[in-house]
Amino acid sequence: MKFGGTSVADLSKMRNAASRIQSEVEDGNNVIVTVSAMAGTTNKLIDKVKEISSLYDAREYDAIVSSGENVSAGLMALQLQSMGINARSWQGWQIPMKTTDHHSNSRIEEIDIENLIKKFNSGMQVAVVAGFQGISSNSRITTLGRGGSDTTAVALAAAFKADLCDIYTDVDGVFTTDPRITENAKKLAQISYEEMLELASLGAKVLQTRSVELAMRYKVKLRVLNSFVEGSGTLVCDEEDIMEKRIVSGITCSKDEAKLTLMGIKDKPGMAGMVFDCLSKANINVDMIIQNISDDGLTDVTFSCPTSQVDVASQALEQGKSNENFNYSKLVVDKYVAKISIVGIGMRSHSGVAQTMFKALGQENINIKVISTSEIKISVLIDRKYLELAVQILHDAFELEKAQN
Amino acid sequence: MKFGGTSVADLSKMRNAASRIQSEVEDGNNVIVTVSAMAGTTNKLIDKVKEISSLYDAREYDAIVSSGENVSAGLMALQLQSMGINARSWQGWQIPMKTTDHHSNSRIEEIDIENLIKKFNSGMQVAVVAGFQGISSNSRITTLGRGGSDTTAVALAAAFKADLCDIYTDVDGVFTTDPRITENAKKLAQISYEEMLELASLGAKVLQTRSVELAMRYKVKLRVLNSFVEGSGTLVCDEEDIMEKRIVSGITCSKDEAKLTLMGIKDKPGMAGMVFDCLSKANINVDMIIQNISDDGLTDVTFSCPTSQVDVASQALEQGKSNENFNYSKLVVDKYVAKISIVGIGMRSHSGVAQTMFKALGQENINIKVISTSEIKISVLIDRKYLELAVQILHDAFELEKAQN
Repeated sequence: MKFGGTSVADLSKMRNAASRIQSEVEDGNNVIVTVSAMAGTTNKLIDKVKEISSLYDAREYDAIVSSGENVSAGLMALQLQSMGINARSWQGWQIPMKTTDHHSNSRIEEIDIENLIKKFNSGMQVAVVAGFQGISSNSRITTLGRGGSDTTAVALAAAFKADLCDIYTDVDGVFTTDPRITENAKKLAQISYEEMLELASLGAKVLQTRSVELAMRYKVKLRVLNSFVEGSGTLVCDEEDIMEKRIVSGITCSKDEAKLTLMGIKDKPGMAGMVFDCLSKANINVDMIIQNISDDGLTDVTFSCPTSQVDVASQALEQGKSNENFNYSKLVVDKYVAKISIVGIGMRSHSGVAQTMFKALGQENINIKVISTSEIKISVLIDRKYLELAVQILHDAFELEKAQN
Repeated sequence: MKFGGTSVADLSKMRNAASRIQSEVEDGNNVIVTVSAMAGTTNKLIDKVKEISSLYDAREYDAIVSSGENVSAGLMALQLQSMGINARSWQGWQIPMKTTDHHSNSRIEEIDIENLIKKFNSGMQVAVVAGFQGISSNSRITTLGRGGSDTTAVALAAAFKADLCDIYTDVDGVFTTDPRITENAKKLAQISYEEMLELASLGAKVLQTRSVELAMRYKVKLRVLNSFVEGSGTLVCDEEDIMEKRIVSGITCSKDEAKLTLMGIKDKPGMAGMVFDCLSKANINVDMIIQNISDDGLTDVTFSCPTSQVDVASQALEQGKSNENFNYSKLVVDKYVAKISIVGIGMRSHSGVAQTMFKALGQENINIKVISTSEIKISVLIDRKYLELAVQILHDAFELEKAQN
């Protein structure tokens, strides 16, 4: 069971979470609980770190920001004890939860399960594990990136071959789209790992992408549930286990996208490589890429990136020009675009999904600026002002209001 | 160098502390810095623990409250790095700082110096150690009691045979008495370990008692300095190293004292034992004890304890009566007393110190209710309303305003 920051935001919410743990214990289960820091704690710590220096040592950052989870874990253990449950807290180094040395963005390499097993065998009913953290090979504290407690929970579930991994959050489950955009949005009863992975990558913040990857790899039965409202949540599982197969399961959108077009690039091998080498060195998260057909030895390259990175990207490209093999005539920036994506495993076997999408948008005169597809996803860039409209009409077009919830 | 909670209360105070560390580094010294939690942090954490349960698991308490020092240590390391100093933070388990298993009141048993030595040899200039914490034999986090960071600092100084152990705080040093009571109070240039130990035990909050014991045992040259004001502070050292030998070095007072008298106890062997067995089982901190002379087979026993414990003590004694061998006719409680103590190694060789004290109090018609002495200390209980007056006249009587500062 994993409880996010809003689920342990104060002691009364912690009591609520503890009572959910209690009923699992009363059902005779051994439980490993993963907790996040109390909502707001981690951001406050990060602010302090950044106030000292923007170029901070990630090892110290990790040592500092991991403290919030230690506090939650201890408090949750005390709360459970006060309810008569044999519980104790575990920090990353105590388990130990071994990770790579990539501070502030580590990956779990190995979980030593022996210590916890021994404790379970000697009467411990609940192990409360501080999420988000681990230790490197030279015994320094590491963290797993924002949302990393999801990954801690899934990794523990995989290591212990848990029957179930319940992720408690402040929403009822995974929705067909953001319920703030259309009231037709429906909670999904089930979703496949692959779809969840696309949704998480596209910015649906309900689960950390890496946790979904891990769950898929180790076949962890993952449920997303609301801490505060009773409900069956959403089960993330194997494609084969899904009863109702849908063509499209969800629609995501992101409004902080920008489209950049480099005009007048020499159309010869290696040019695209140079462009994206420039951008990669400047740590730009390039998302979609298109290269237009060339007819005069010159071509245009279009890509999208987060709006916040436009200035850094422009600068990096300008500086890249000093390399005499690399040149372009003009950089055209459109900061007012949004990305809409439809995701569904049904796309693999059904043709006409793209057509339905483009037709629906076309009927509302929404111009598609860039298209990118994967096996189970179609993403388009459109004018930002059409974002809500586009989500609503696509939700209708694919009849997502009929999803089983 | 140890920096207390007020010395690292915010980032600007941390910068100030860091600049003091920087000058030690520039002088070519390797420095081990011990930091407390940022002022207020630990109390907030303790409040949360107590809100969950008054009977909390001390192991979880330790895991929770130790987190404040981890944050300070990381932030201080970052601050030093931003000034170009090769610094890193160390949590108790990383050193490791091995302690007894007495959670929330552990004692340091062994400090493994190898890891730090290795790092110093490979370029580390400053080790920033999270104060107040250690690990038990079964790898759980322990804490050393309130003020425990002083002990961390002294223990590290002893283990590394440091040239000096500087305790940075928010006062100029150790004073002849509380400057809030008399403006004649003088900072002492030097004080012996023995005197400092008595002063710390009597409630002068400038150093944790145990840190002074450790410093005395390992002959650690200890200085108490003000983080915010330049000055020479107070050197705590061996009696033989003190230039100016004073008869009385300091006067302490405590107003949260209560005097309890058990009247009509059978005067036979074992009775006092029963009384204090009762009190000890109820965790009462009994301070002074007097038994009056008996002439009719019955006697009175008087003791003092913190005012806050009077109710628990009364209850424990009342319940103790159920033991048929133990009885008393009446319990008389005086909640309005204060304790005044004079401390000085000179008392060993000078007679007449007690006489001077009693005479000075007598001249102001201050009645002495209880007297207790040790080799270098005389304590008396008086009416609380005379506390300030008593300190002032004793400060004058022993000419403490002439202390070398």
